[in-house]
Amino acid sequence: MKASRFFIATLKEAPADAEIVSHKLMIRSGMIRRAAGGIYSYMPLGLRSIRKVEAIVREEMNRAGAIELLMPAVQPGELWQESGRWEQYGPELLRLKDRNDRDFVVGPTHEEVVTDIARREIKSYRQLPVNFYQIQTKFRDEIRPRFGVMRGREFIMKDAYSFDKDAAGLQVSYQKMYDAYVRIFTRLGLHFRAVAADNGSIGGSGSHEFHVIAETGEDDIAYCADSSYAANVEQAEALPLLAGRAAPAEALHKTPTPGKAKCEAVAELLGIPLQRTVKSIVLAVDRDDGTDVWLLLVRGDHALNEVKASKVPGLAGFRFATEAEIVEWFGTPPGYLGPIQTKKPVRLVVDRTVANMSDFVCGANEVDFHYTGVNWGRDLPEPEVADLRNVVPGDPSPDGRGVLSMCRGIEVGHVFQLGTKYSDAMNATFLGENGKPQPIVMGCYGIGVTRILGAAIEQNFDERGIIWPESIAPFEVVLCPMGYDRSETVRAQTDRLYEALLAEDIDVILDDRGERPGVMFADWELIGVPHRLVIGERGLKEGKIEYQGRRDTQAELLTIEQVVSVVTGKIRAAKAV
Amino acid sequence: MKASRFFIATLKEAPADAEIVSHKLMIRSGMIRRAAGGIYSYMPLGLRSIRKVEAIVREEMNRAGAIELLMPAVQPGELWQESGRWEQYGPELLRLKDRNDRDFVVGPTHEEVVTDIARREIKSYRQLPVNFYQIQTKFRDEIRPRFGVMRGREFIMKDAYSFDKDAAGLQVSYQKMYDAYVRIFTRLGLHFRAVAADNGSIGGSGSHEFHVIAETGEDDIAYCADSSYAANVEQAEALPLLAGRAAPAEALHKTPTPGKAKCEAVAELLGIPLQRTVKSIVLAVDRDDGTDVWLLLVRGDHALNEVKASKVPGLAGFRFATEAEIVEWFGTPPGYLGPIQTKKPVRLVVDRTVANMSDFVCGANEVDFHYTGVNWGRDLPEPEVADLRNVVPGDPSPDGRGVLSMCRGIEVGHVFQLGTKYSDAMNATFLGENGKPQPIVMGCYGIGVTRILGAAIEQNFDERGIIWPESIAPFEVVLCPMGYDRSETVRAQTDRLYEALLAEDIDVILDDRGERPGVMFADWELIGVPHRLVIGERGLKEGKIEYQGRRDTQAELLTIEQVVSVVTGKIRAAKAV
Repeated sequence: MKASRFFIATLKEAPADAEIVSHKLMIRSGMIRRAAGGIYSYMPLGLRSIRKVEAIVREEMNRAGAIELLMPAVQPGELWQESGRWEQYGPELLRLKDRNDRDFVVGPTHEEVVTDIARREIKSYRQLPVNFYQIQTKFRDEIRPRFGVMRGREFIMKDAYSFDKDAAGLQVSYQKMYDAYVRIFTRLGLHFRAVAADNGSIGGSGSHEFHVIAETGEDDIAYCADSSYAANVEQAEALPLLAGRAAPAEALHKTPTPGKAKCEAVAELLGIPLQRTVKSIVLAVDRDDGTDVWLLLVRGDHALNEVKASKVPGLAGFRFATEAEIVEWFGTPPGYLGPIQTKKPVRLVVDRTVANMSDFVCGANEVDFHYTGVNWGRDLPEPEVADLRNVVPGDPSPDGRGVLSMCRGIEVGHVFQLGTKYSDAMNATFLGENGKPQPIVMGCYGIGVTRILGAAIEQNFDERGIIWPESIAPFEVVLCPMGYDRSETVRAQTDRLYEALLAEDIDVILDDRGERPGVMFADWELIGVPHRLVIGERGLKEGKIEYQGRRDTQAELLTIEQVVSVVTGKIRAAKAV
Repeated sequence: MKASRFFIATLKEAPADAEIVSHKLMIRSGMIRRAAGGIYSYMPLGLRSIRKVEAIVREEMNRAGAIELLMPAVQPGELWQESGRWEQYGPELLRLKDRNDRDFVVGPTHEEVVTDIARREIKSYRQLPVNFYQIQTKFRDEIRPRFGVMRGREFIMKDAYSFDKDAAGLQVSYQKMYDAYVRIFTRLGLHFRAVAADNGSIGGSGSHEFHVIAETGEDDIAYCADSSYAANVEQAEALPLLAGRAAPAEALHKTPTPGKAKCEAVAELLGIPLQRTVKSIVLAVDRDDGTDVWLLLVRGDHALNEVKASKVPGLAGFRFATEAEIVEWFGTPPGYLGPIQTKKPVRLVVDRTVANMSDFVCGANEVDFHYTGVNWGRDLPEPEVADLRNVVPGDPSPDGRGVLSMCRGIEVGHVFQLGTKYSDAMNATFLGENGKPQPIVMGCYGIGVTRILGAAIEQNFDERGIIWPESIAPFEVVLCPMGYDRSETVRAQTDRLYEALLAEDIDVILDDRGERPGVMFADWELIGVPHRLVIGERGLKEGKIEYQGRRDTQAELLTIEQVVSVVTGKIRAAKAV
């Protein structure tokens, strides 16, 4: 490509609404332009990178045996009513009526449409397994679209849907997709982690998110540096921090702690580590005929994980107790609560670490008093134990291979085991080998194609601009001739180099715009082309061309003879997986 | 591709709502599946053909210097309000509100969005010309979606928009697109014509439609078999059928024609050719202060062309006169009207052929009477002359190179000269060489990607199914082994052939489904794969493989040695342009 035949439109300033670096740089480099809040036009430069992402995704999906189709963007509302999501989805679902007043949606995802296809097309177990995918434009009416393509309203997704005859088949399909995703994100040149995840609104059981690791990520991830373990913080298992419970060494003692309602203050007053204290959290579950009150205990330095709490049998749909309820059950307002001698019986569940504590400190259900030297089995019965807390850095990794660290991630892919959620709701069955109709067992697998651009930038930039991985750079090499229209030598050598790189299938752009070197260099550094060759008369006199990688601090001189093979070699090495 | 890893789902019957052959065959072959009225999922087979169309379109657009981008499907309503089309477009425009109650549309076309981009990005004449295109999903809420992908609601279009500094530049951009379209439709293997067209609602001046010629087409096209002239019937120029006017030979005579209100009946009664009679049509144009009544004359065997009539100065926005108006102006009800002695003055315009008639017959403005021997300049003043009629087969071609024939066409492409319609409405200006802001001069250029599939089928089918042109066939060759899982010889030879064809970059599918030969052949004939190879033990014993082209009535035997080169040669020849 020659720059004069392309459209380059860089900006000095980012718009005021661009909060994060990828948004700023995508606008400044001219990859995207805003059409409305969360809705962008992908300019020629941006589209080139999108197409490269799509090509890699498509190759790996095909390699994994998935079959591409293309479903409509505008979907009949009836299908969403059938699945139940017409009601469940909320205002992110862009609903509309056609000229005949029929309900439609601009699809945020395609479970309904693909299940409708499957129930009509798949009749026999002989047609299974099958995996359909598409690369398609979706719409999600985000309440606060922001961060450019990272949380846009209209976006491009690859979505795949597997159909199996049973759960064992789904496991195989799921693993194929998991493996394909690993290959895809590896080929995209991204630093990523597959993270065990909670399922969210899409339903079903068993899922992983693929996160690009970046400080600006919206998700907290716990991972083990010594293994492949990674999980959303909501999901990461917290092991007990004490291997076993020590024998009691202290007597139970009610201690005055005037004005010290928080664990930190109590620990400071008593001169003990925070790790000796226990925090009381009171939850309520409403029943038709009354309310259950629960007391949950986590160590003083830990935080309750509400997702985990909601999974304790009986605690689904809990709420935090009101002050009135606390007074009614504990005989005291919040601040000095504990498990010993509650006014009315409560259901007690304690975190695994708390269960192994001895001689600990907790509230005495009396204002300005705590108990010290509390011990399970002596002062209290053996408690019900569960994983109730958020993991913290330094916790043992659940896979036993080291300790957990924390990082932030940007979700760019997601693999789900849907099971029969949609096939049950929409009556998608097949005739099994036994001749009887059975629900098709489904999985679904998404990749945020446009979001990947933002995530790649969040992971790869400097003060001058974007630093694209070779695999998704809009161009792999830029040729910057010094005086293309002035010097016959420069022009001839530049053209030769251009043709030679094209012949090697290198995606090269020749900057023939006639801009000054400073402008040219700044543009291509902003745009993030990973390799730059500067062709000037002075260098050519010595048979040299200047090469600089986008991450290099210094340029180096290559001979004319070696330049094509060196650059080609660097690009192929970077793209090889 | 191996069929066992692909998704083949042919149907014996077409659905009841499929009226035309392409719709029936696309459903039966499993290319598309209906999601809602006029909304389809493109199944794996259909998507393959779509991608091939897209690839050819993209290559030729790039070759013509257009630059690809991708604009959003969901567009802000404000832009449509700015251009005025929010009001003008009618219910085909799918309007909706987002969660914040803002107006949006699912875009049927992108003039507004691209003009918005242009006015922000194009500042100087130095950036012109530029031509942006995209291949994108659009929505048009058709009142009666039908004919499958031919008149769907959601469809894929290539739309391009050129930006020039002046009309001369637009002519160059327009011609480039015209030439690219000729290459595209030629490469697609379609029999087509570029047709001079009326502009329709999109506005602007100067346009051509590209029509695939097919009996089932919705548009009437007049064309000259001896030249490249072609035009929509509404648009085709009707030349005078008489070279000049003969001198009067008869006297003016009021003749009784009782009960003969139609030209045909009058001609029969008088024993003269219909071509000697003249038809009177009365039109009215409402003004603020009254109504103008016009009398238009065409020859008795011709039909008024309303589009042409509306272009006569003063006749824009005409309507047909009411019976009361006719009585008021002519003194008689319809049936015996004519230009001589109207009751009140009317404005008279006559067709070019009528203007050259002499001794003709017309109504006498008296029930049951006609005038014969009517002559211009003697019985009536010289009339105002215009092209008022539809062309008919046998008319001289306006380019003077033969006579016109009529055919029907399916519009698959359209090139428009928009001029400054959108840049004026949306204030899209650039700084000219004189330093002053000027409106950008625009053109727009559409190709109906999905409609092309339907059009190609309407032009290429037989009773067994589709006959794809090689360039857009979902597969170019199908290998049908007889006993792939029974015969080691057959399997080995089939696999060798498969690999050899892949190595030649031939798009081959190997039918390893294990179906009976009859089912296999019927499926691939329905699907329309243009070349078939049958590999059987009997043939192999003699070193032969059976080849049959989809249009061939008989199979032929090729030696194993020659089969790859013969098939490859046929495909390359068909795709070469």
